[in-house]
Amino acid sequence: MDLVTHWRDSIEAPDEHAADAARDRQDHLTKPRGALGRLEDLSVWLSAVSGQCPPPPLTEVALTIFAGDHGVARLARTSAYPPEVTAQMVATFVSGGAAATVLARHQGVTVRVVDVCVDSDWVGIAVPAAVTADRIRRGNGSIDREDATTPAEARAALALGARIADELVDAGAQLLLPGDMGIGNTTPSAALVGLLTGAGAPQVVGRGTGIDDNTWMRKTAAVRDAMRRGRSQLDDPVALLACCAGADLAAVTGYLLQAAARRRPVLLDGIVSCACALLASTIAPAARAWWQAGHRSTEPAAELALKRLGLDPILDLDLRLGEGSGALVALPVLAAAGDLLREMATFESARVSDRPQGPG
Amino acid sequence: MDLVTHWRDSIEAPDEHAADAARDRQDHLTKPRGALGRLEDLSVWLSAVSGQCPPPPLTEVALTIFAGDHGVARLARTSAYPPEVTAQMVATFVSGGAAATVLARHQGVTVRVVDVCVDSDWVGIAVPAAVTADRIRRGNGSIDREDATTPAEARAALALGARIADELVDAGAQLLLPGDMGIGNTTPSAALVGLLTGAGAPQVVGRGTGIDDNTWMRKTAAVRDAMRRGRSQLDDPVALLACCAGADLAAVTGYLLQAAARRRPVLLDGIVSCACALLASTIAPAARAWWQAGHRSTEPAAELALKRLGLDPILDLDLRLGEGSGALVALPVLAAAGDLLREMATFESARVSDRPQGPG
Repeated sequence: MDLVTHWRDSIEAPDEHAADAARDRQDHLTKPRGALGRLEDLSVWLSAVSGQCPPPPLTEVALTIFAGDHGVARLARTSAYPPEVTAQMVATFVSGGAAATVLARHQGVTVRVVDVCVDSDWVGIAVPAAVTADRIRRGNGSIDREDATTPAEARAALALGARIADELVDAGAQLLLPGDMGIGNTTPSAALVGLLTGAGAPQVVGRGTGIDDNTWMRKTAAVRDAMRRGRSQLDDPVALLACCAGADLAAVTGYLLQAAARRRPVLLDGIVSCACALLASTIAPAARAWWQAGHRSTEPAAELALKRLGLDPILDLDLRLGEGSGALVALPVLAAAGDLLREMATFESARVSDRPQGPG
Repeated sequence: MDLVTHWRDSIEAPDEHAADAARDRQDHLTKPRGALGRLEDLSVWLSAVSGQCPPPPLTEVALTIFAGDHGVARLARTSAYPPEVTAQMVATFVSGGAAATVLARHQGVTVRVVDVCVDSDWVGIAVPAAVTADRIRRGNGSIDREDATTPAEARAALALGARIADELVDAGAQLLLPGDMGIGNTTPSAALVGLLTGAGAPQVVGRGTGIDDNTWMRKTAAVRDAMRRGRSQLDDPVALLACCAGADLAAVTGYLLQAAARRRPVLLDGIVSCACALLASTIAPAARAWWQAGHRSTEPAAELALKRLGLDPILDLDLRLGEGSGALVALPVLAAAGDLLREMATFESARVSDRPQGPG
């Protein structure tokens, strides 16, 4: 059976009994009902996705950074940075000096970096073979004028993301984070969100890494052209990924869907993972319940995608870095929600009076 | 010299040289300029208040929970919970089952609980002598009709908060968190914010622990009466605390001011610490630069106070628990900001290309 059909047929809802038990437990903890606000909702979600109330401590969290280059960055110059930065940043993840790796180290999150379609021969760059072993192709096509990948490559990239999710789940991961690295990768992300929400190119194109007005205009034109090319593929997610996204985005999409198929929750990051989540939800609407949004990116396409998905981000800190950094900053807040549900005393156990005043 | 004069004369600004160095360092880290959004501002602040760029890891953080009862809760019935809950919750802090103590334990934050003015004889409640040794008085007066404390008690409570800050700083604390526990303590907090911002009682009274409409009306009337009593004391912070706040709020105020006097930063929590911070800033406007707001409470008075102070909260999670819980949930985000500035590679050290594309 092909993967898309598998996901469509097999992804189920999280555990509603555990969610109900969590709601009930929240109402007995030593605090006024509802006083922990959003943290109460997150604790209910953690219970539902773990199938346990209270949920276990979040000790096994895994970040995968999907790296790829985008021809559109070179040919249409849609980024403030040159494409060789993708490979250089992969090396910086490996050496631990990137934002995501600093944050992951402090929280005990394992990091895997995958060269899905980096446009580099890696000569003179210190990167382990494990990082580059799974490459689908060298760079994506320039989506304003050509397909990003072949349909076969898009399918292979979906399978790659799924295989990585499987390996992490098999190794005990309780929660998966999607990360991304790729000069130009906000361009296909914006195109996907525009196509899937019906928004126009100017509504989905942001400042990415910090582009100037001229670059913004070039980027918007490229997104408009890519959307024009992709419009006829809207009924076929694999064709859409091949036509105007890329192998790295396909791998993220497969990762998100396979996590849900394996009943593992995901904390989304910025525009790339939000765009892929939106596409993934068209394949399997039930997958959405397995995701939370880590933060509200400054990229308008990320915000649009989250709104369409009905996901309310945990943090709003004007982050726009990608790499998984926003999900990593949100992780302690999510973990705290579970810790509180698990470890707070109840009114009964602490012998605290629960509102014996009666109605005012 | 009296404490208020001491604070007025001695509190200085944080280190602007360290802040400048942090801004410069941010611009060399391996990320697009500004891509870490609010985390960049927080890292600059951590540098300024620690006097070091990059700032040291936040390993020594101390929470003090100031507990007190408020006559207005008993006489004007402004809370959904009976006053004996204050003492019961103090016992729950001691046994570690309260929200703040769960969060503190997971982050290695030390917790001190201080009975400033709890209305309990502690008979049959397991609380160590150290918690109750510093009591200023038993319960505050009902501020809708009588003074909360005498001026001498308010001064003693300011000195108590200052002494606790001194002890924590002497023991090595890098960052102080203010916590509170007291049935009815949002009533004097709302009155203080109303008086100091010029807002009317209905604008500053929220739902506290979750009160119904009738209780909200009684609470609003009590706040209006307290504000009427306090209006003539606006020029004298000690008189204002005595007239319509209370010993616990005075202790929080002294804690915040002495932290600034000792050049130590504070992460504010909810309505009680925000109201006290607003009052403290009238004594020493320079103190404000030593504070960050942990979260946006659902209490309107907290939001008004933060707006007046020019502080933008780190989190917005609809929390309304107090205890220091909101500051504790925000702490990992603040710590992450410092970790990133300290540990990320620079473009130069990682040999990553920094925008050689030139203008678009």
